[in-house]
Amino acid sequence: MTAHLPTLSDIINAHSRIRPFIHRTPVLTSGSINEILGAEFFFKCENFQKVGAFKFRGATNSVLSLTPEELARGVGTHSSGNHAAALALAARNAGVPAYIVMPRTAPEIKKIAVGGYGGIITFCEPTLEARETTMAKVQQETGCTFIHSFNQFEIIAGQGTAALELLEDCPDLDTIMAPVGGGGLLSGTAIAAKSIKPDITVWAGEPANADDAFRSVQSGSIQPAVPPNTIADGLLTSLGPLTFEVIRHRVDRILLCPEPTITEAMRLIWERMKIIIEPSSAVPLGALMANPDDGWKGKKIGIILSGGNCQLKLM
Amino acid sequence: MTAHLPTLSDIINAHSRIRPFIHRTPVLTSGSINEILGAEFFFKCENFQKVGAFKFRGATNSVLSLTPEELARGVGTHSSGNHAAALALAARNAGVPAYIVMPRTAPEIKKIAVGGYGGIITFCEPTLEARETTMAKVQQETGCTFIHSFNQFEIIAGQGTAALELLEDCPDLDTIMAPVGGGGLLSGTAIAAKSIKPDITVWAGEPANADDAFRSVQSGSIQPAVPPNTIADGLLTSLGPLTFEVIRHRVDRILLCPEPTITEAMRLIWERMKIIIEPSSAVPLGALMANPDDGWKGKKIGIILSGGNCQLKLM
Repeated sequence: MTAHLPTLSDIINAHSRIRPFIHRTPVLTSGSINEILGAEFFFKCENFQKVGAFKFRGATNSVLSLTPEELARGVGTHSSGNHAAALALAARNAGVPAYIVMPRTAPEIKKIAVGGYGGIITFCEPTLEARETTMAKVQQETGCTFIHSFNQFEIIAGQGTAALELLEDCPDLDTIMAPVGGGGLLSGTAIAAKSIKPDITVWAGEPANADDAFRSVQSGSIQPAVPPNTIADGLLTSLGPLTFEVIRHRVDRILLCPEPTITEAMRLIWERMKIIIEPSSAVPLGALMANPDDGWKGKKIGIILSGGNCQLKLM
Repeated sequence: MTAHLPTLSDIINAHSRIRPFIHRTPVLTSGSINEILGAEFFFKCENFQKVGAFKFRGATNSVLSLTPEELARGVGTHSSGNHAAALALAARNAGVPAYIVMPRTAPEIKKIAVGGYGGIITFCEPTLEARETTMAKVQQETGCTFIHSFNQFEIIAGQGTAALELLEDCPDLDTIMAPVGGGGLLSGTAIAAKSIKPDITVWAGEPANADDAFRSVQSGSIQPAVPPNTIADGLLTSLGPLTFEVIRHRVDRILLCPEPTITEAMRLIWERMKIIIEPSSAVPLGALMANPDDGWKGKKIGIILSGGNCQLKLM
């Protein structure tokens, strides 16, 4: 069975659809990082995206792809992360409700973010089972459409628009990289990049402590992510059937990054570029730093910085 | 006696001189900060400037204004902050030595920064007297030209180029703001802004715990900064004769900012704009937040974010 996957034209359509709502984020470079690491980097700053993460692209595309009847009943998801905030804002922009199921134990800052964007929160116990049954109940009561955070056609198409923009701005990249958690961003990136520029290499960065995508591609079947133990808290999820299908065929390499190198890469970007990125965003650069002999020195490498939402301590 | 002060044309000349060496830093805006605070802000991002601070403008202008004979003998300063790093890089770009006198007790990160830019460091005891006598000795030995960190014609002219660029990008500002420590940035800003746009108001933000500039203007004579006790460690210095002269005549108001509001403003910029600024940079916005009834609501306000060099703790 062949999964129904987005193509470049679906990504281009998604881009037209979401363009009025998203930021066209800048591509930044750093002379000192280039000098330190010995390659030419182009950072696509989705940390500057609305809600502080690329997730807003896919969420907006999903909301705007609904039929008028579906749209009127609103959307829902269970998530405690950036997807929940992104979906809440995308729904608010469309004037419809977003029903968000969150574990009671979610960090206060996440609850405030989702609530701040107008999401209607239902709390549940902190288990996957409770999340799913609570979500089912909310769907039954409201008729809302469930929007998965990565394993969905419109989400993948929406996330692919970041690579579309990056390759518009920097058409001569040798390699494009994204972090991999559930694989929505990486799938959209791979579809866009390989379609626009067939000779580009698509690489992923994954925490060595949450290397399920790496193991899934190696073994040929989706491997669970347990027990992930990484600072890159956006990358804990395992792949879904759609994202696995894309990644196994269109991603050239998944490079693993040990925990200390994630922190080192994050610090390098914070200190040299004076921009705030979340740990997940540092994983691709960290994965290169951890694998210095993998042929990337001297190349032009585009890296999607996935988001900037992290708890900050001052000084 | 009238002090010899830079004019707009000196600032324009400084800009032509330093332009090949500096970054033209972007002006960023934040819809959410505008909404939260009820005014329209335009942030001039000197945190993205080379060496991470506006200081590189003045230092470069000072180095490039020397005669060939002076230049060949190099430059020197006693500083443990951004000025030392800025002067070291400016001298390296000109191919001449920079002699930096630093207290032995300076933070390791500052020593590394200055050394990394090729500065030749002489350590001294951590007293003002030791700094000055050590500096005098180094000058005697090397013949280098001493470059003060703020109370100097070329420094003030160089720092004024940030406001020049800001007003090129945003010509219809109602108010322009800078933080005030020694007053180099504020003086350059006031000269540039009032000359280009006589009806603009020039405001300063100063830590309430280091309010010497405020007290100096009130009393009509330079007041010492002791004992300053503020997180905004770039603003500990008191004014010099030149900067006092400019500030008393051309700055419309100095607004004070309590310590908790400095942190609040810094956090607001970090979280909403995903950029890293040092505490001193947050003082102007904090000073507005602490003085909400001072007539700035609904106005277009340009703020110079002075730098981005701070010790970061992750998470």
